[in-house]
Amino acid sequence: MQILISEVKSWLLEAGERLKEALLDEKLQVDTKLSRTDLVTNLDKEIQDFLVGKIMTFDPKAKILGEENGQDKLEDFSGRVFVIDPIDGTMNFVLEGENFCIMVAIYEEGKGVLGFIYDVMKNEFLWGGPSIGVYVNEERVQQTKYLSLEEGLLGVNAKMYTHNIGNLQAIGDVSMGIRMCGCAGVEFIHLALGRRAGYISNLAPWDYAAGQILVETLGMTVTKFDGESLNLDEREFCVAAGPAAYTQILKLSLENKEGY
Amino acid sequence: MQILISEVKSWLLEAGERLKEALLDEKLQVDTKLSRTDLVTNLDKEIQDFLVGKIMTFDPKAKILGEENGQDKLEDFSGRVFVIDPIDGTMNFVLEGENFCIMVAIYEEGKGVLGFIYDVMKNEFLWGGPSIGVYVNEERVQQTKYLSLEEGLLGVNAKMYTHNIGNLQAIGDVSMGIRMCGCAGVEFIHLALGRRAGYISNLAPWDYAAGQILVETLGMTVTKFDGESLNLDEREFCVAAGPAAYTQILKLSLENKEGY
Repeated sequence: MQILISEVKSWLLEAGERLKEALLDEKLQVDTKLSRTDLVTNLDKEIQDFLVGKIMTFDPKAKILGEENGQDKLEDFSGRVFVIDPIDGTMNFVLEGENFCIMVAIYEEGKGVLGFIYDVMKNEFLWGGPSIGVYVNEERVQQTKYLSLEEGLLGVNAKMYTHNIGNLQAIGDVSMGIRMCGCAGVEFIHLALGRRAGYISNLAPWDYAAGQILVETLGMTVTKFDGESLNLDEREFCVAAGPAAYTQILKLSLENKEGY
Repeated sequence: MQILISEVKSWLLEAGERLKEALLDEKLQVDTKLSRTDLVTNLDKEIQDFLVGKIMTFDPKAKILGEENGQDKLEDFSGRVFVIDPIDGTMNFVLEGENFCIMVAIYEEGKGVLGFIYDVMKNEFLWGGPSIGVYVNEERVQQTKYLSLEEGLLGVNAKMYTHNIGNLQAIGDVSMGIRMCGCAGVEFIHLALGRRAGYISNLAPWDYAAGQILVETLGMTVTKFDGESLNLDEREFCVAAGPAAYTQILKLSLENKEGY
């Protein structure tokens, strides 16, 4: 486990250096995928290839599920699976040059064992798993207090909020305020470090895999609005929060079910 | 002017050190003002008093308009006026420990001459004015390209967006995406540095004064939705953007006037 952890951390740090270098020196090649705001760059593809190469050298039998390069479906979670997001928050990477993450989650026989979220420009690296706890850079994250919805900020997805999916506007009204940053990894780091009461979004497996492993290790919960488990299969509405806020969010979402 | 600039910068840096120290070591005293989400802390008051003391020592004849301590109205803008916001983004200061700014704007005979926005935790310090240009830390900001609404992100105020004030949801749909960070200073820095096509919010004079001086120096515009000037008198709906995006926003807002 220790060797695996230090390997993955070194890959993400190296990939992060590459992204910083590209932001400084290169003109990005930006393409669109499903819509004009669904961006992909040459760096998303390059970093995915880099990570896949590292994984295949380290563990040739491992399976991979990842956002780019046609690796976005996986039926069989037996053995070891790496779920990777080479750039989470590609829009921010292109337009802000910050607030993007590189993420890796590792599953063994379908169980999440390690998560890694690296906010490259902020140099905030959250990593860990159920058997070792959670760390930010080299410091252990101590979960001392979960914020209730009334006490904390709520990270939300813009489209879900606009269309009031899951009664999200009412949920936001109970919180201290909503925030939209455009990057799931950044939101999961905020949640893990006590800067959020919760995070509600519409996420693909590579967007939530690492975050789920990390915040669940800290005693929080990540599910669909109806409390059902996420299935690592397709894009889903996700609720992530500590115990008190999680119960509040599910209760409030049931009061207006038309949206989902 | 040079002495004034280095004085104000040194005050903000010193105030920033005080805020960092307080976040590390102290239990904040948090009170509410107009609502349960309108927060003020002992540090807002302490930093305002610190800045007022520095201003009065440096220029005893200057007038002051500021968020805290009953200094929030000023009728007469003759002579030199300092507009101060000791902590812009108090909610973020309390709940995130980041994404807050200290801001100072200086007016001479009613004209904005200098603006200072210091994002304390990120150490991003935007300052300047029409006679000297704009700098981030010690580097000159070169405005080479203004993003159109279709090309860039849009910073928005949550309440305005939810209630579609000024047709804001449609404006957001034309942009590459909306962001809500809870701090006007952070948004003005983003706009000045090309990370936003625009910023639309509901702001008091101390929230927009420094930002308006800085982004107008860079050739952008800050007005009400109807194109009228802001009056430094009360909370107002504000549009801040470069030329192309500004025209698009005003046009789109006119298509649905019911909200304001």
